[in-house]
Amino acid sequence: MAKINKISGFPEWLPQQKIAEDAVIATIKAIYESYGFAPIETPAVELLSTLGSKGVIDKEIFVVKRLRAEEGDEAELGLHFDLTVPLARYVAQHAHELSFPFKRYQLQKVWRGDRPQKGRFREFYQFDIDIIGRGDLPLSCDAEVVGVVGLVMRALNVGPYSLRINNRKLLSALYAELGLAGATSKAAITAVDKLLKIGPDGVAAELRKIEGISERAVEVILRSTTIQCGPEDLREKIASLNLSSQLIDEGITELEMICELLPPEATERLTIDMSLARGLDYYTGVIVEVGLDKYPEFGTVVSGGRYDNLASEFTDQKFPGVGVSIGLSRLMELLFSEGLIETKKVSPSVALVTVYDESDRAFCNSVAHQLRTAEVPTEVYFKAPKLGKQIEYAESKGMRYVFFIDSGTRQIKVKDIQTKEQREIASINEWLSSR
Amino acid sequence: MAKINKISGFPEWLPQQKIAEDAVIATIKAIYESYGFAPIETPAVELLSTLGSKGVIDKEIFVVKRLRAEEGDEAELGLHFDLTVPLARYVAQHAHELSFPFKRYQLQKVWRGDRPQKGRFREFYQFDIDIIGRGDLPLSCDAEVVGVVGLVMRALNVGPYSLRINNRKLLSALYAELGLAGATSKAAITAVDKLLKIGPDGVAAELRKIEGISERAVEVILRSTTIQCGPEDLREKIASLNLSSQLIDEGITELEMICELLPPEATERLTIDMSLARGLDYYTGVIVEVGLDKYPEFGTVVSGGRYDNLASEFTDQKFPGVGVSIGLSRLMELLFSEGLIETKKVSPSVALVTVYDESDRAFCNSVAHQLRTAEVPTEVYFKAPKLGKQIEYAESKGMRYVFFIDSGTRQIKVKDIQTKEQREIASINEWLSSR
Repeated sequence: MAKINKISGFPEWLPQQKIAEDAVIATIKAIYESYGFAPIETPAVELLSTLGSKGVIDKEIFVVKRLRAEEGDEAELGLHFDLTVPLARYVAQHAHELSFPFKRYQLQKVWRGDRPQKGRFREFYQFDIDIIGRGDLPLSCDAEVVGVVGLVMRALNVGPYSLRINNRKLLSALYAELGLAGATSKAAITAVDKLLKIGPDGVAAELRKIEGISERAVEVILRSTTIQCGPEDLREKIASLNLSSQLIDEGITELEMICELLPPEATERLTIDMSLARGLDYYTGVIVEVGLDKYPEFGTVVSGGRYDNLASEFTDQKFPGVGVSIGLSRLMELLFSEGLIETKKVSPSVALVTVYDESDRAFCNSVAHQLRTAEVPTEVYFKAPKLGKQIEYAESKGMRYVFFIDSGTRQIKVKDIQTKEQREIASINEWLSSR
Repeated sequence: MAKINKISGFPEWLPQQKIAEDAVIATIKAIYESYGFAPIETPAVELLSTLGSKGVIDKEIFVVKRLRAEEGDEAELGLHFDLTVPLARYVAQHAHELSFPFKRYQLQKVWRGDRPQKGRFREFYQFDIDIIGRGDLPLSCDAEVVGVVGLVMRALNVGPYSLRINNRKLLSALYAELGLAGATSKAAITAVDKLLKIGPDGVAAELRKIEGISERAVEVILRSTTIQCGPEDLREKIASLNLSSQLIDEGITELEMICELLPPEATERLTIDMSLARGLDYYTGVIVEVGLDKYPEFGTVVSGGRYDNLASEFTDQKFPGVGVSIGLSRLMELLFSEGLIETKKVSPSVALVTVYDESDRAFCNSVAHQLRTAEVPTEVYFKAPKLGKQIEYAESKGMRYVFFIDSGTRQIKVKDIQTKEQREIASINEWLSSR
């Protein structure tokens, strides 16, 4: 007999969890679509040369090979590890068939070929949006993406969260005034990005490793990371660092403009946070992160930002973009383990039509058919045991209504499991209009 | 620069195709859920030992390995090639946490590690339902699955189709009366299954290869394959073969009972077809296939049937089941290539709010927000070029309404692209209630 081993890192939900996940997906999707983001989907695999095109071969990749492949048989394939590389390839490949700005959402699993370890997913859903321009892309798009993130977090209703934004341009401009540019500026960003993990002293130590960095630069950078404020205070707070330049001014103005364009519902929990740096190289403007206040150790639920050139590995055309990724499976795992989401529904069924005798089944089916047509998901019990057993089944599946058919008279009774009320009805239509 | 090569066999849709596919998915899902089927999802990978457990290692499997895996590092994984093997493993693994009969639907990609060849998908969606019993499962479930197939095909509205059913029990009973049993009976089923491909003469030749088969058996089997009828004529047609036994009688009765329990809408295009045999070994009762009448060479859109023991490789418990699989990606490819489905919508957007001047953008956003809240997917144009250009964009994305904001007075005009009508409105709410 084949042994069943759980495969570490590949989460699998029970039906009641999948139903809860589908509800979360529907909530997010409705917001994405309300802004006109269109769905796309790419294959699970890309050429290994595509996956490695940004030099990210150190992300652990799962290679995919035919069991019966022969040497040199065909191109080497790997499972995608995010949705950004496939998007870049998609945009470059289909650019002539797309309308720009190209606004897409994409819900797909991604795979990380990490060594198996506890609590680390190797297969998980990401739910991304991006707006891609051809040539250029104005700040209105950055604001739109940040706004959508705020609306999504509000709609998910999973407890207090922080929506933090910053601007890579502003960071670079500040660091430039402190004598850091190019590689040393990047190194400073990498150091600041570790603040939550290693604390201010750790960041100071990291900064001091940067060649030629001054003690004042270390001190001012550390001080800058304590700036957390709304857009109305940003200019003054930055001024207190005693650094100024045209680029700094522009960086501040960008953040102010973005905030001005946000819907009020999206700004409730918004902070401009100068300690937010984000590790990835490719961000060039606004950066965004969302965390849940009660679960700081959980890390980010949503993250993203602006990049100048999405598909530079594939084409000479310039495709600037801005987007975010929601780590859906990780979020669901947290919601399940902390009981932040209801998982009572083990089935879509709302009503059960009981069967007193097999000879009634065709009639029971016709009753169920009427209910289904009126968008009441309905099951007919699959056998005809004692009614108590059938009612138990309805309860175990979280159904609300149980219908009883009188075999002789074909009269219908309905019991509301929630209110425990039972009544006779003249017809299903009567019940539908009165419930 | 990285080269973009299309990976043969991995279909990828444009946004307008994905939107059309999503609409098809929503139609099927609504019917599945109306019957109380619950969603599940399994990882893309299974242990190779699980995938090979039915001895189907000759299905070409894609093996998945970490790029940096070391010898003996971990269990060997492969991408699932159908949704039945993962379902069997899921049911065996989670049986104690599931309610039976377990009714599940599952929409996932599957992968076939075939050698690349034209027109053959190596990654595609299947959209399955199954009802799994613990111990036993009555015929009411077979009828439910056949009924759902009928309703799905009707709702898809993609031209005339044939819903054909048969009963493996009846076939075995007939063949038994002709002296075939066990391996020779299976061989006869395999031969009959090739009827469409190789014709009656070909089938006769295949049958004659079966050891010990009589010429009468060949003749009667061939004659049986010409029986295509409704349930009301089945008994008489079978009687004309001059074969009778208790098992034959039972097989006929089963088909009659199933047909009796179908909703009328599902029987419109139903035929009991004695030439339907289905190749797979594991079917033990009713078998089902749907084809599109205008595209016989396309093969089946839906197929499935009853099996006695889903998870015998994993557990001693008996889990009989009945289910079908819709070959979604193949179907979509046909609908696209034959123009059987509309692909005009390249975005969910219904309305565009134009921007006359960047200083209006915040107000434009608030107008868009009102529309979105009323479930009108809306974009605000991302820049502020000439209005003609903005209208073109709305048209190119298939939007219906364009809103114009007077920068000074903040009066709103709306143009209906379809009717070409343009009018001034007092407020978005007024428009929403009057459109």
